[in-house]
Amino acid sequence: MASNKFSVGVDLGGTSIKFGLVSQDGKIQKKMVLPTFADKGPAAVTKQIKKGVTALLKNNSKKIQGIGIGAPGTVKLKKGTVEYPPNFPNWGRVHLGKNLEKLLKKNVYVENDANAAAIGELIFGIGKKTDSFIMVTLGTGVGGGIVFERKLFRGETGGAGEIGHVTIDINGKHCNCGSYGCVEAYIGNNYMISDAEKLLADHKESGIQKILNDDMELLTPKVIYDAANAGDEFSINFIKQLGTKLGYGLVSAINILDIATVVVGGGVAGFDEFLFIPLEAAIKERVLKPLKNRIKVKHSKLKNEAGIKGAAALVFYSQFN
Amino acid sequence: MASNKFSVGVDLGGTSIKFGLVSQDGKIQKKMVLPTFADKGPAAVTKQIKKGVTALLKNNSKKIQGIGIGAPGTVKLKKGTVEYPPNFPNWGRVHLGKNLEKLLKKNVYVENDANAAAIGELIFGIGKKTDSFIMVTLGTGVGGGIVFERKLFRGETGGAGEIGHVTIDINGKHCNCGSYGCVEAYIGNNYMISDAEKLLADHKESGIQKILNDDMELLTPKVIYDAANAGDEFSINFIKQLGTKLGYGLVSAINILDIATVVVGGGVAGFDEFLFIPLEAAIKERVLKPLKNRIKVKHSKLKNEAGIKGAAALVFYSQFN
Repeated sequence: MASNKFSVGVDLGGTSIKFGLVSQDGKIQKKMVLPTFADKGPAAVTKQIKKGVTALLKNNSKKIQGIGIGAPGTVKLKKGTVEYPPNFPNWGRVHLGKNLEKLLKKNVYVENDANAAAIGELIFGIGKKTDSFIMVTLGTGVGGGIVFERKLFRGETGGAGEIGHVTIDINGKHCNCGSYGCVEAYIGNNYMISDAEKLLADHKESGIQKILNDDMELLTPKVIYDAANAGDEFSINFIKQLGTKLGYGLVSAINILDIATVVVGGGVAGFDEFLFIPLEAAIKERVLKPLKNRIKVKHSKLKNEAGIKGAAALVFYSQFN
Repeated sequence: MASNKFSVGVDLGGTSIKFGLVSQDGKIQKKMVLPTFADKGPAAVTKQIKKGVTALLKNNSKKIQGIGIGAPGTVKLKKGTVEYPPNFPNWGRVHLGKNLEKLLKKNVYVENDANAAAIGELIFGIGKKTDSFIMVTLGTGVGGGIVFERKLFRGETGGAGEIGHVTIDINGKHCNCGSYGCVEAYIGNNYMISDAEKLLADHKESGIQKILNDDMELLTPKVIYDAANAGDEFSINFIKQLGTKLGYGLVSAINILDIATVVVGGGVAGFDEFLFIPLEAAIKERVLKPLKNRIKVKHSKLKNEAGIKGAAALVFYSQFN
């Protein structure tokens, strides 16, 4: 039976905005992309969102329950206020949700993008079988969201779930956030690539240099994954170290939250079992005893479309919260 | 105006059980202690609790709303089940709450002791002015509890808030829990004293050896505090290091929870400003930027009677949850 309820998901990024018409069973019916024009200020960005939603819904005959927006920065739910999103100059505090409701004559739900990803997983993914989980998104940053008993745990300002800024070594690497030894300072894409480059200088036996014709500018997580898949010991071990560090970081989060299921998504999750096996082993090795047997580490079900789907899920989530 | 509602708080420890008759405004009206007889098994312990409560309420004319019990180990709320409490041999799973309700003909509320301490702080202490906080209890172990929007955040099994087992250094000291570099492995009483002893061997300038006539068996946190108070540089610096480490551990907890108020209680909190100033500085130095200005570090208001008062608070807490 096809679902007969639909919502629009808007994934607001610093350079582009992705739009999708999504059914309640999590299928994207139609999608499109527009540039954000973040440097032109909030009015221009709001106009782009209106333009995209209008275009997406042109000739639409389906009943739309509402519009969900996943936005960077701090979000206040009441008026859908987006505060100081990184990479959006001259933004300040904007009641994006309230403004768009007036413009589009539809219910609009705004949430921080990391929280939206967790809600997407709750509504369309892991949440079908699991009521509580810690969501981790691996990319340039390491983001997170906490779902407990089918509700998002937002904390005092919606910022809860910053797994990337759990410390694994107080004397460790400097992190862009200003702290030291954060999970993100090891697993975040740029940190990871820069570490791999340095290590490769001492690992001439690795196949990576040959693949890249010694042009280290071309090094990406994908290159490391492909090399691991081809049996390159250096790459396998490098990904293993990342998994172990992320696992040790998650031990702190799990011990604090008493939530035993971890869902991992984002680009670097593509490291697949090279990452997941040491990650799960590291958690089980160090987490408090009563938690050990309950630990589950799962792949995100939403993959590449997590942004649009998470935003669209806000609409369905709001209907029973 | 005197409060006219009362409850009984039972602080169940491995060697002794403390009982108190407590008014709704948090004053202990009467108290007593009995041995636990933990090694004689659950029936004997249950009998001791019945004996204590009965004695406490002898000739009582006050209206008792119920009995609260703070117990070690995992607690399931529904039947007040206490599971495998450490230092209680032959215990297993016991429906302590259900059993005592039958014996005492009163409502009985059982909760894990660290959670009870947090609820005590919510009902009788910090909670008068603050809706959300992270409670940390410093003693032999480093315990914790999370209060969010006036509710205890228990996690999946009531074990949430294990601040003592947040990692500050994945290559750090071995902790009794099996992990490495846990906060407790530095701040827990026994770990701390053993570290101080080792350091003192290289710090002959400290006044501590003289105070103890070189008998290091006599070293306690109190001795270190007294020396710090008398101006002993070694002791001041030692406590400062502890505060810094605890602060760095709390950074991870605060970043995950987005809860900016920390309440510190337990014996070692007696280190007072020698501990609290570096602790607060360490958190503010490393926590994520949006949290920095919101950070508050407060002394527990319940002090020595946190055990009885936390247990008694369970009764009043249950009435509006």
